[in-house]
Amino acid sequence: MLIHSRYFDYHLFFKRNLSDCYNEISADLQDRLIFVITNTTVYHLYATELEQLLEGVDFHWVVIEDGEEYKNWKTFQDIVEQIDELGVTRRSLIIGFGGGVVGDIAGFVASTILRGIDYIAIPTTLLAMVDASIGGKTAINTKEGKNRLGSFYPPKMVFMPFACLQTLPTREIQCGLGEIVKHGLLGDEKILELLEENAPQILQKESSILIELVKRSCAVKGKIVMLDEQEKGLRKVLNLGHTIGHAIEKVLKYRGITHGHAVAIGLITELRWMVSRGYLSDALVIRIMAILKELDMSIEIGNISKEECIQAISFDKKRKYDMITLSIIKKIGVVYNLDFSIQEIPEIVEHLFLGE
Amino acid sequence: MLIHSRYFDYHLFFKRNLSDCYNEISADLQDRLIFVITNTTVYHLYATELEQLLEGVDFHWVVIEDGEEYKNWKTFQDIVEQIDELGVTRRSLIIGFGGGVVGDIAGFVASTILRGIDYIAIPTTLLAMVDASIGGKTAINTKEGKNRLGSFYPPKMVFMPFACLQTLPTREIQCGLGEIVKHGLLGDEKILELLEENAPQILQKESSILIELVKRSCAVKGKIVMLDEQEKGLRKVLNLGHTIGHAIEKVLKYRGITHGHAVAIGLITELRWMVSRGYLSDALVIRIMAILKELDMSIEIGNISKEECIQAISFDKKRKYDMITLSIIKKIGVVYNLDFSIQEIPEIVEHLFLGE
Repeated sequence: MLIHSRYFDYHLFFKRNLSDCYNEISADLQDRLIFVITNTTVYHLYATELEQLLEGVDFHWVVIEDGEEYKNWKTFQDIVEQIDELGVTRRSLIIGFGGGVVGDIAGFVASTILRGIDYIAIPTTLLAMVDASIGGKTAINTKEGKNRLGSFYPPKMVFMPFACLQTLPTREIQCGLGEIVKHGLLGDEKILELLEENAPQILQKESSILIELVKRSCAVKGKIVMLDEQEKGLRKVLNLGHTIGHAIEKVLKYRGITHGHAVAIGLITELRWMVSRGYLSDALVIRIMAILKELDMSIEIGNISKEECIQAISFDKKRKYDMITLSIIKKIGVVYNLDFSIQEIPEIVEHLFLGE
Repeated sequence: MLIHSRYFDYHLFFKRNLSDCYNEISADLQDRLIFVITNTTVYHLYATELEQLLEGVDFHWVVIEDGEEYKNWKTFQDIVEQIDELGVTRRSLIIGFGGGVVGDIAGFVASTILRGIDYIAIPTTLLAMVDASIGGKTAINTKEGKNRLGSFYPPKMVFMPFACLQTLPTREIQCGLGEIVKHGLLGDEKILELLEENAPQILQKESSILIELVKRSCAVKGKIVMLDEQEKGLRKVLNLGHTIGHAIEKVLKYRGITHGHAVAIGLITELRWMVSRGYLSDALVIRIMAILKELDMSIEIGNISKEECIQAISFDKKRKYDMITLSIIKKIGVVYNLDFSIQEIPEIVEHLFLGE
């Protein structure tokens, strides 16, 4: 699949195994220094396999801790200093091999070291395949919130080795499904139908259906980022569910809930608010709630108060000039962005389902 | 002057005073949060004047220490955390007000905070006016060397308040002259003639000549960056004198010599090597040496060994794949880039004039 726009121009390759990915790029790996950035989990699963493939290639592992809480300044600086000391040059290549955290931080390093060197993404999680690896967003988190420091930087190529999905725990599959549901809403009803008809098989990681979902999901996201890679306008529709989703993650300090699950809860909350405002009929909300139920994803959230959520969306004096852009969905595939006063936030948060 | 290319599109405004700059942008400063990044020296000189101009504008000072040694991780992180905590949003604006260090680091912050917000450059030194403020390069230094972490990020506008040049010490004027000589070599013989005919007036900071030099210098650099803003090829000619210049700065730990003066010494060294290799006749080297003498800029350097210089260009095992691109000048305005093995470095360093 080609992602092509004014600034971006790269291919997504759908592959079976790491060796299939390797065959595609082996010629690109010669006579240059390669840095494979990954996390401890992925390293333990795939180090042996990748080292065998990369025999004869001059490469270094850069292994970071696994978890959103490590997508921070310290990890960013550690990686930069490591590859800087190892003699990175403009001809070097960074490979981000792992989930969304690895991709975001590896891409940010690639975009800033020596003002930008080649970057190849090999997402290994369902979430990273359908979300982070497309569209060139890179970032780290700061004290003030998620992805507040980063860049727009296109990879040279993206490889999706579907076999890696088989090593994911169920909650990681569900995490990816949160974004996949969103992509269905944004532009492909067939995604929702696949989810409705195959929930048990999906949770059992049946390859053919996962692959179909990834491809369709990438097509939806790809189409949007090609029209607005720098998120000047349209691309903001991808934030559907994220205003509330990010708030939940922030309140929970990025622990105890996956990003995709937080987005799923955010979706329901935001859709319910849209129904209350008359933007949307409630049939679609009911449909999405049923899908999430089938996928065994709770739409209730405990250990959190509405007040904390409101605060987390920076509903405070600092943001006095800040309007908030919300993606409004009218029906599947018909989505637009509207600016609201941040005064609207408590109203939306009201529609969160709090658990016991 | 319009700087326009595939990625960039912004104006350079040549102005007299800060108030003239302010008049041009005042409409842009309303109803948004403004961060003015500067250093202690510039702050003490201009805080009162700028605060008067910005009355009624919602702005914060971000004041960093003065000096190349502060263009580092810590300062970068401090600034980001400061503006992040003050509630920066995508509508906020960063103004980089100072010399090259301020511009490089402020631009880097602007390019990465929230993945990029508006940036306006107000260079106050001769060097920053003719060099750092044009072409969208941003950076900080790492342990391994200068400008090793950064981005290409165009400002919205650049203002050059010429009155600020009057507060510069002579060595800061000479610093800018190093790059101006380079720009003369790259494409405007009139620059060299102006330097030859007006050296004493220039050192006395006679406005009309400084302004003429800045405008001509910006025209040369602007033309080059418009053709190759991402430094894929042609733009590397701007590195003339910098292979050696950077090495000198690195060995001296960025102290005791200005960037422009190091570049001037680098120019002479590299030109002398080009003569020895038959790329260039020695008349031009002799001419440039005479100009630097008139400008009271020594072309000898003490406290440094050739061996250290060679090491500083990372002539070590780490860089085994690394070719070095050198800008070769044939005559004024005829410059091209050639790749050499790093084995060539000691040969070039041989042409450095060491002082006692």
